[in-house]
Amino acid sequence: MLTTRRTIRRYTSRDIEPELLNRLFSEAARTQTMGNLQLYSVIVTRSSEGKAALAPSHFNQPMVTQAPVVVTVCADFRRTTTWANCRKGNPGYDNLLSFMNAASDALLFTQTFCNLAEDAGLGLCYLGTTIYSPQAIIDALHLPKLVFPVATLTVGWPAETPPLTDRLPIESFVHEETYHDPSPEDINRFYAAKEALPENKEFVRINKTETLAQIFTDIRYTRKDNELLSRTFYDALCHQGFIK
Amino acid sequence: MLTTRRTIRRYTSRDIEPELLNRLFSEAARTQTMGNLQLYSVIVTRSSEGKAALAPSHFNQPMVTQAPVVVTVCADFRRTTTWANCRKGNPGYDNLLSFMNAASDALLFTQTFCNLAEDAGLGLCYLGTTIYSPQAIIDALHLPKLVFPVATLTVGWPAETPPLTDRLPIESFVHEETYHDPSPEDINRFYAAKEALPENKEFVRINKTETLAQIFTDIRYTRKDNELLSRTFYDALCHQGFIK
Repeated sequence: MLTTRRTIRRYTSRDIEPELLNRLFSEAARTQTMGNLQLYSVIVTRSSEGKAALAPSHFNQPMVTQAPVVVTVCADFRRTTTWANCRKGNPGYDNLLSFMNAASDALLFTQTFCNLAEDAGLGLCYLGTTIYSPQAIIDALHLPKLVFPVATLTVGWPAETPPLTDRLPIESFVHEETYHDPSPEDINRFYAAKEALPENKEFVRINKTETLAQIFTDIRYTRKDNELLSRTFYDALCHQGFIK
Repeated sequence: MLTTRRTIRRYTSRDIEPELLNRLFSEAARTQTMGNLQLYSVIVTRSSEGKAALAPSHFNQPMVTQAPVVVTVCADFRRTTTWANCRKGNPGYDNLLSFMNAASDALLFTQTFCNLAEDAGLGLCYLGTTIYSPQAIIDALHLPKLVFPVATLTVGWPAETPPLTDRLPIESFVHEETYHDPSPEDINRFYAAKEALPENKEFVRINKTETLAQIFTDIRYTRKDNELLSRTFYDALCHQGFIK
């Protein structure tokens, strides 16, 4: 299955039964977590109002309002902290390391859910925008302190079969024993097939850049945007209590 | 398969064929990533010297030296930055948001690899210690700037079948539409089964605490340790160029 996986952005009108979704969440929860504490939570958005509230955080991409279900996965030290407070514990999870622990748990859980959902025939789109506008998502979903959104998925039954996207050769990302810093010759070899693809050549033409890499560095994920969004991300971490 | 998954810490002496490992890495690379940039790299440690160099970072847990293979997955903006520099791009990924983008890609890739490896019959242990001592791992694996370790797996053929561990009921982590902040009564309901398990009662007895939660807050993941490790994590992010 996985060798033919693709991101699905268009869905049929068929709903996803709550029983199916809950079975998938339940199985995904077999994923290992820190101390078996399950430092994540999932917010399921099915209402039109809920999707409309989330849409601007995701640049109003049409999947958010058109998918039957939007799933927001959060790093969550809130439940564990409340548990500890109810049990005479002394929780100390309002710090950066604890955010990373909970974010790791949340992302690992997210990906097992993705693999299971795709195996069940569902189509998914992972929205990387989640960490660009965390505060708006925090507000829309009423997330209390020590809960932070790290991943969003639009989920539905596929209404398209897009072509498979390319991947780099494994020698570009698998290193034996120690890291091999790529030379310009290595880079040429790693990226040759990607750069030669007709769809990527077309992508360069419509973006009016000279190279494919420039689309990413000069148009889509620019230094200016990254530095601005780093500040809003940092501010949201402070607001949610993970940085003092 | 997933419904019976367990962490495996003891392995047979059988090696893992490089072809199998590479096939699993290759399939795991079908996982979605930011802009299809694949912002991760994998370091495969098979040598005794390599494992010995990593062991202290993981509190000398015996799996690290006893497993045939140790896999360290890194958030990696280095390769993409070098590609951009070779192609007249202007990369700007030396910031916190870019670290989170790459860490997300790396963790999602890690979990698909885990699911595939377990499906192939391999046993895994996920080492959460990776982000506790990142600098020592950076040194051992010769990681350059913009490469940061986020997950470590010990991998081998299982030599044990430990009992399944418990999980919280899904109502504790799945929220409809907005976050439902758990009340003390909710906490009692969510944690009752976990607290009643004989193995957890025994865990409380040997740790000489009054409650199960206290083991986590007062012994294993204390405020003092979390605050100290938050600083070493932050320092390592600066050292690797993700924070200025």
